[in-house]
Amino acid sequence: MDKLIIAEKEFQSRLFLGTGKFGTPKIMEDAVLASGSELVTVALKRIDFETQTDNLLEHLHHPQINLLPNTSGARNAKEAVFAAQLAREAMETNWVKLEIHPDPKHLMPDPIETLKATEELAKLGFIVMPYIHADPVLCKRLEDAGTDAVMPLGSPIGSNKGLRTSDFLEIIIEQSKVPVVIDAGIGAPSDAAKAMEMGADAVLVNTAIAVSENPVEMAKAFKLAVEAGRMAFEAKLGRENKTAKASSPLTAFLD
Amino acid sequence: MDKLIIAEKEFQSRLFLGTGKFGTPKIMEDAVLASGSELVTVALKRIDFETQTDNLLEHLHHPQINLLPNTSGARNAKEAVFAAQLAREAMETNWVKLEIHPDPKHLMPDPIETLKATEELAKLGFIVMPYIHADPVLCKRLEDAGTDAVMPLGSPIGSNKGLRTSDFLEIIIEQSKVPVVIDAGIGAPSDAAKAMEMGADAVLVNTAIAVSENPVEMAKAFKLAVEAGRMAFEAKLGRENKTAKASSPLTAFLD
Amino acid sequence: MDKLIIAEKEFQSRLFLGTGKFGTPKIMEDAVLASGSELVTVALKRIDFETQTDNLLEHLHHPQINLLPNTSGARNAKEAVFAAQLAREAMETNWVKLEIHPDPKHLMPDPIETLKATEELAKLGFIVMPYIHADPVLCKRLEDAGTDAVMPLGSPIGSNKGLRTSDFLEIIIEQSKVPVVIDAGIGAPSDAAKAMEMGADAVLVNTAIAVSENPVEMAKAFKLAVEAGRMAFEAKLGRENKTAKASSPLTAFLD
Amino acid sequence: MDKLIIAEKEFQSRLFLGTGKFGTPKIMEDAVLASGSELVTVALKRIDFETQTDNLLEHLHHPQINLLPNTSGARNAKEAVFAAQLAREAMETNWVKLEIHPDPKHLMPDPIETLKATEELAKLGFIVMPYIHADPVLCKRLEDAGTDAVMPLGSPIGSNKGLRTSDFLEIIIEQSKVPVVIDAGIGAPSDAAKAMEMGADAVLVNTAIAVSENPVEMAKAFKLAVEAGRMAFEAKLGRENKTAKASSPLTAFLD
Repeated sequence: MDKLIIAEKEFQSRLFLGTGKFGTPKIMEDAVLASGSELVTVALKRIDFETQTDNLLEHLHHPQINLLPNTSGARNAKEAVFAAQLAREAMETNWVKLEIHPDPKHLMPDPIETLKATEELAKLGFIVMPYIHADPVLCKRLEDAGTDAVMPLGSPIGSNKGLRTSDFLEIIIEQSKVPVVIDAGIGAPSDAAKAMEMGADAVLVNTAIAVSENPVEMAKAFKLAVEAGRMAFEAKLGRENKTAKASSPLTAFLD
Repeated sequence: MDKLIIAEKEFQSRLFLGTGKFGTPKIMEDAVLASGSELVTVALKRIDFETQTDNLLEHLHHPQINLLPNTSGARNAKEAVFAAQLAREAMETNWVKLEIHPDPKHLMPDPIETLKATEELAKLGFIVMPYIHADPVLCKRLEDAGTDAVMPLGSPIGSNKGLRTSDFLEIIIEQSKVPVVIDAGIGAPSDAAKAMEMGADAVLVNTAIAVSENPVEMAKAFKLAVEAGRMAFEAKLGRENKTAKASSPLTAFLD
Repeated sequence: MDKLIIAEKEFQSRLFLGTGKFGTPKIMEDAVLASGSELVTVALKRIDFETQTDNLLEHLHHPQINLLPNTSGARNAKEAVFAAQLAREAMETNWVKLEIHPDPKHLMPDPIETLKATEELAKLGFIVMPYIHADPVLCKRLEDAGTDAVMPLGSPIGSNKGLRTSDFLEIIIEQSKVPVVIDAGIGAPSDAAKAMEMGADAVLVNTAIAVSENPVEMAKAFKLAVEAGRMAFEAKLGRENKTAKASSPLTAFLD
Repeated sequence: MDKLIIAEKEFQSRLFLGTGKFGTPKIMEDAVLASGSELVTVALKRIDFETQTDNLLEHLHHPQINLLPNTSGARNAKEAVFAAQLAREAMETNWVKLEIHPDPKHLMPDPIETLKATEELAKLGFIVMPYIHADPVLCKRLEDAGTDAVMPLGSPIGSNKGLRTSDFLEIIIEQSKVPVVIDAGIGAPSDAAKAMEMGADAVLVNTAIAVSENPVEMAKAFKLAVEAGRMAFEAKLGRENKTAKASSPLTAFLD
């Protein structure tokens, strides 16, 4: 399989993980390791700066794992930029997953503030990966603003509904010059495989692994599914057919 | 992963392959080997009995590969039983994939003749695996008739449309006492993964691999996807949610 | 709109109604009248033969309304034929909606017993309308057995899931020489409209109207939707397009 | 049915029409009249200002029909505002359907420029109805900017794919304080009915009527479907059920 490159960094794995909702930090660690993921997103809010007793980061302290602080909870560009700066200090990385969602119920991302924050963060030298609605025009504008990837959603976050936005993801993938990472809504390995088959560059999964009865096994399942989907994309799938086509010839030997 | 058992035979792989539509017998052989499949279906019609020059079977001559002759082309129970008997002679196996489809355009299976043939073949000592519509009641009647598995379709054969019958497959899987093998319509690794996530015991794939630009890589992709789906089934997935659920906590550290 | 003919009888309305689950017989009557339906199915079991006090039939005593007794509850052909004969006596009609479902949980129809009962009832002079799975081959066999219509399901009965079987309904509609009436699963007027757009000859609706907060208004809504769908079918719809097509020309006047 | 009010204007019909793609202006006029529509959108570009010979507007000169000039072809806020001002002069209305799509292939709307133009046009006294992606946060921001309605798309324009964005339309409808008009992608009366059942305030249809073999009949079909969908919304539909529910009681009278 060809490799994924974001902002000149090379990734072997096309599966990114979120760290929320796990039963314990240890289960999270085991699941992350089982997934083979090299990019793991962490909410800035979950880091305890003062007491230094927070061990979430300790559990992610492995050579292959890169941290992707996210700005979850930010309601506008200003809050997000501030959060990104704090994260850069705290986690010693200039990568940031930009999340701006003013509505606490549905957590849908704000296109206007996200574009504004992307412009600012890019100027400040951040590697920016914005979480957005599956909006093809917004993706192009984020490119112009200097984004390093786009992270369109598959369906509402945490809904496990899969790739409801596939008609728009197809356009985004066709047009994008930066990597496309499908984020939110991926509820099963089959969804992750499908995203990769469509030509997405990577997927980010959290809820589906964290709330499984067996997060470590589920992480492995996602690992395989992402590889399967990417292999199928590279080997090229056939198309849907309107009429049945027999796999076996019909020259009737019985006549 | 727990093992699949059909008619007291144990399978490591839950991926079955069809052998039609491949460019050459060699490509077919390579794809079958790459898939890890242990059960491969062959149309009786494609075997050249008289000259013994047919080398399709030679290409399937590997210790781990079991042949599953199919009755493709049979239009009623009588033809199918006759074909199964010929196949038993020719391929030295009492396993048979029962396919009866009177309509050459859509190749949909005939429920009445399939039940009749299953009854007869079971009495004649065959291991019977009938290809059928995703009809829950028919599945129970086939069980009563002595079938060893049921093979409901996901969508019209060769259509690559995936699991359009999932509402009915769920009922079949819930009720069945024999293994459920999803056959027909599986057009991508994501479809195979989804079938396994739903609890199917195995899937049979042909067209999607054979018509790919790279059948060997596609066979590997299906192998991984089937494993991913089975692992996810065993690790148990969460449910679809109506409302967004944040993966990260929202206690606003920014306030 | 062209008229629907079943067994030489002409219908103005392509909406058939079921009579179960309504709050009161009066609400049922009002909904049936509002729907414009001319064919209404009644479960034989709900008729109280002995005391003659059952007023369900009284509420359906209108010149335009034809009764279609159904054999709901029958678990095999023998029970269904017996029920049809009772119904012929009691309701003075030789029309019968054949329902055979051995499984009380999912109520899926039995293809084998339904074919057998259709053969017998056709010989006994009944006008037979069998409720079946969306099985294209079974539909052709029912035709050969003398059925007057076929009633394939859209999705499991009472599920309100709509036309999950549309891939198979399309084949059935394309091949059928008798009217195709979509039964079961139609949960909203949009589902009924879609069935008609696909070329179905009629739809049968019960649950969606009966359990609505306002069954009479809902019956009117279904009436309009069925008319809309049929008109669209006759006026012919365009096809789905892969690429966006502007409704307005793009010759840029602004340049 | 309760009435639709946009910017203090009352509408009897919840079906809005586009005027592109019709074979002749006369067919367009007949279809508009048959649809009962009271709001009809016209591309500014199609009006021939200089020679005054354009008769498109003449064909729309009916007392019940209100014109809704659109800015189709505009690639940014500046062009759109200029177009709206021209239209106000030419068509003597301050209503405007705001369309800004920089990409001529997919014609997806630009969220950033659309918000900017809405702000400006609202200040300039226009009644603004912006065509947008089904983006819940953008809808709220447009409200804050003074929009009079929001027009989220169902699927890519001209694709006839229906309501692929329904997960997001549900959120938009739940949250919106201004009328929600579903625009783009509505390919059949069943799609229009479904939009109304979901609680949309109105739908805008163009391609599906204009390219039908019989646009006048298709316009009537959409009229009925929109009425059906609204009636169903007001009468309240039941929910999808996981398990089959019999419409007829199962107390076995046959025992």
